[in-house]
Amino acid sequence: MPSVREIRLKSRPSGLPTHDNFELATVELAAPGAGEVQVQNLWMTVDPYMRGRMNDVKSYAPPFQLGRVMDGGAIGQVVASNDPSLSVGDLVQSGFGWREGFNAPASAMQKLNPGKLPIQTFLGAAGMPGLTAYAGLLKVAALKDGDVVFVSGAAGAVGAMVCQIAKAKGHTVIGSAGGADKVAYLKSIGVDHVIDYKAEKNLNAALAAAAPDGIDVYFDNVGGAHLEAALNSAKMFARFAICGMISIYNATAPEPGPSNLAQLIGKNIRMEGFIVSHHFGMMPQYIAELSQWVADGKVSWKETVFEGIEKAPDAFIGLFKGENLGKMLVKLT
Amino acid sequence: MPSVREIRLKSRPSGLPTHDNFELATVELAAPGAGEVQVQNLWMTVDPYMRGRMNDVKSYAPPFQLGRVMDGGAIGQVVASNDPSLSVGDLVQSGFGWREGFNAPASAMQKLNPGKLPIQTFLGAAGMPGLTAYAGLLKVAALKDGDVVFVSGAAGAVGAMVCQIAKAKGHTVIGSAGGADKVAYLKSIGVDHVIDYKAEKNLNAALAAAAPDGIDVYFDNVGGAHLEAALNSAKMFARFAICGMISIYNATAPEPGPSNLAQLIGKNIRMEGFIVSHHFGMMPQYIAELSQWVADGKVSWKETVFEGIEKAPDAFIGLFKGENLGKMLVKLT
Repeated sequence: MPSVREIRLKSRPSGLPTHDNFELATVELAAPGAGEVQVQNLWMTVDPYMRGRMNDVKSYAPPFQLGRVMDGGAIGQVVASNDPSLSVGDLVQSGFGWREGFNAPASAMQKLNPGKLPIQTFLGAAGMPGLTAYAGLLKVAALKDGDVVFVSGAAGAVGAMVCQIAKAKGHTVIGSAGGADKVAYLKSIGVDHVIDYKAEKNLNAALAAAAPDGIDVYFDNVGGAHLEAALNSAKMFARFAICGMISIYNATAPEPGPSNLAQLIGKNIRMEGFIVSHHFGMMPQYIAELSQWVADGKVSWKETVFEGIEKAPDAFIGLFKGENLGKMLVKLT
Repeated sequence: MPSVREIRLKSRPSGLPTHDNFELATVELAAPGAGEVQVQNLWMTVDPYMRGRMNDVKSYAPPFQLGRVMDGGAIGQVVASNDPSLSVGDLVQSGFGWREGFNAPASAMQKLNPGKLPIQTFLGAAGMPGLTAYAGLLKVAALKDGDVVFVSGAAGAVGAMVCQIAKAKGHTVIGSAGGADKVAYLKSIGVDHVIDYKAEKNLNAALAAAAPDGIDVYFDNVGGAHLEAALNSAKMFARFAICGMISIYNATAPEPGPSNLAQLIGKNIRMEGFIVSHHFGMMPQYIAELSQWVADGKVSWKETVFEGIEKAPDAFIGLFKGENLGKMLVKLT
């Protein structure tokens, strides 16, 4: 009967989460029951959307419960099986993250066949963040030939894939990120114009200079001032895929929206929010395209890795401080 | 050589326009040149979008020029013709409003065959405002069976048509307007729930009460607090047709947008701005449907009429004070 550690929600944060909001606990795992398997998690993911789940507010994902484990995406390995569909040694993808191990029905997880890809890729470029970039660009923003694409949070797990997919398809790409390392990274993957928003005094002017003829597509991971600048630089019939607004996730008081929304009218701008779960049907098509881009050297990715379940809160809090280059991950073994 | 009066832009307004921004002038009309006609205007329109043209800012419609006539939609009658395509007595629709008469190329105007409709209807229900309602609902918001529709500025020229088109198509309609007269009018045309936004302390609560299961479509003429309430009450996959934001047209400092735009993401809301000129192709289909609705008693309209060119500034300023029930018009003869 192994003992495993897990992270629980101790208290709900006001503003940026702190260590006080998390609690490390140890639980003993019984043998898996009928139809269950026991899984040792190898990798877990932390993602910005989890901040919303720390509030006691109904949204598309249910809120985390106080005193209970914070669940989320993970890659693990079956270490004991009481179900014929999974064998010891099988790799599985599950939603039982923020813990070193667990028992769960075999039906609640997905067997993973990673092929040539490192397994943690399925939490990033070949997983939800990658598909978010792909579906957001191609379906929500309806990317078409000749579009100039602006991406905020461009060095993050989603943003870096947006940049590379757009480049692979031949577009001019403008990416915004904060800090010299991220700027250098974005230039290294072929982004045409990189805006260091932390160094820029005037984001509107910086975007106008990078896109003198305007932008056709804006992929928003940030909201706030970036959204305002995108509206100012939008061409007629621009499409905005609204994926995230990390700039306001930790706001303790209502954060006003951009003052220039009336530009939607004269420019006939379409602004559409989305969450990736409504686009899971595009996954096979995405993986097929991704495999080709990887083989052609057109798409790569970065990971920022924290080691050990006890570091999961640091990894998570780091997302809101911009500490990650590419996908933020926690390695559990 | 008749003399006619016209309204010119004397100075650009800061905030709500005042009489000082307008100038009444008299000009003498020569006989029409080759290819030209001379028109006596019978009706002219004032519309909220003209406020934007009073600023010296490039937008979808060019700015009015200081010292020059403010042009805009008008219905007139040919009083002299020097072109075979139009005869004395013909009714014409033109963009040469804010004046009692003018000479212009025959090719710059459209001959009007009003049928059974009063001619001024072609500046309202059977003209741009009506088509704006129709295209915004059917094309931009992609109205579909069962949708619950929320309309702001519901007693205005566009809003009242949105309400009635949605009702004619069998939808539940919630309309917001200010004051007892407008509320009574909206009830008289079958709007299911009417919100008097001037009387409501909490627009969010009022809309939530009117639409306990949420709204599918929001037709925005107002922006600001109405847009915020609509985001709060939006169902999954709601569509917002952004037609106008009259609440901020006279703002002298940037007016912050709603603080709840992040709801676009979780609810997969599509918010799309539009101007009617991109949908002129729908006019024949609209007029065919409108004629049937009028014949069936399903659609009617109200007009608020000022008399005399010298009253045009009053009519225009009145738009921003909510003085119009239905279409605001100026009768010139």
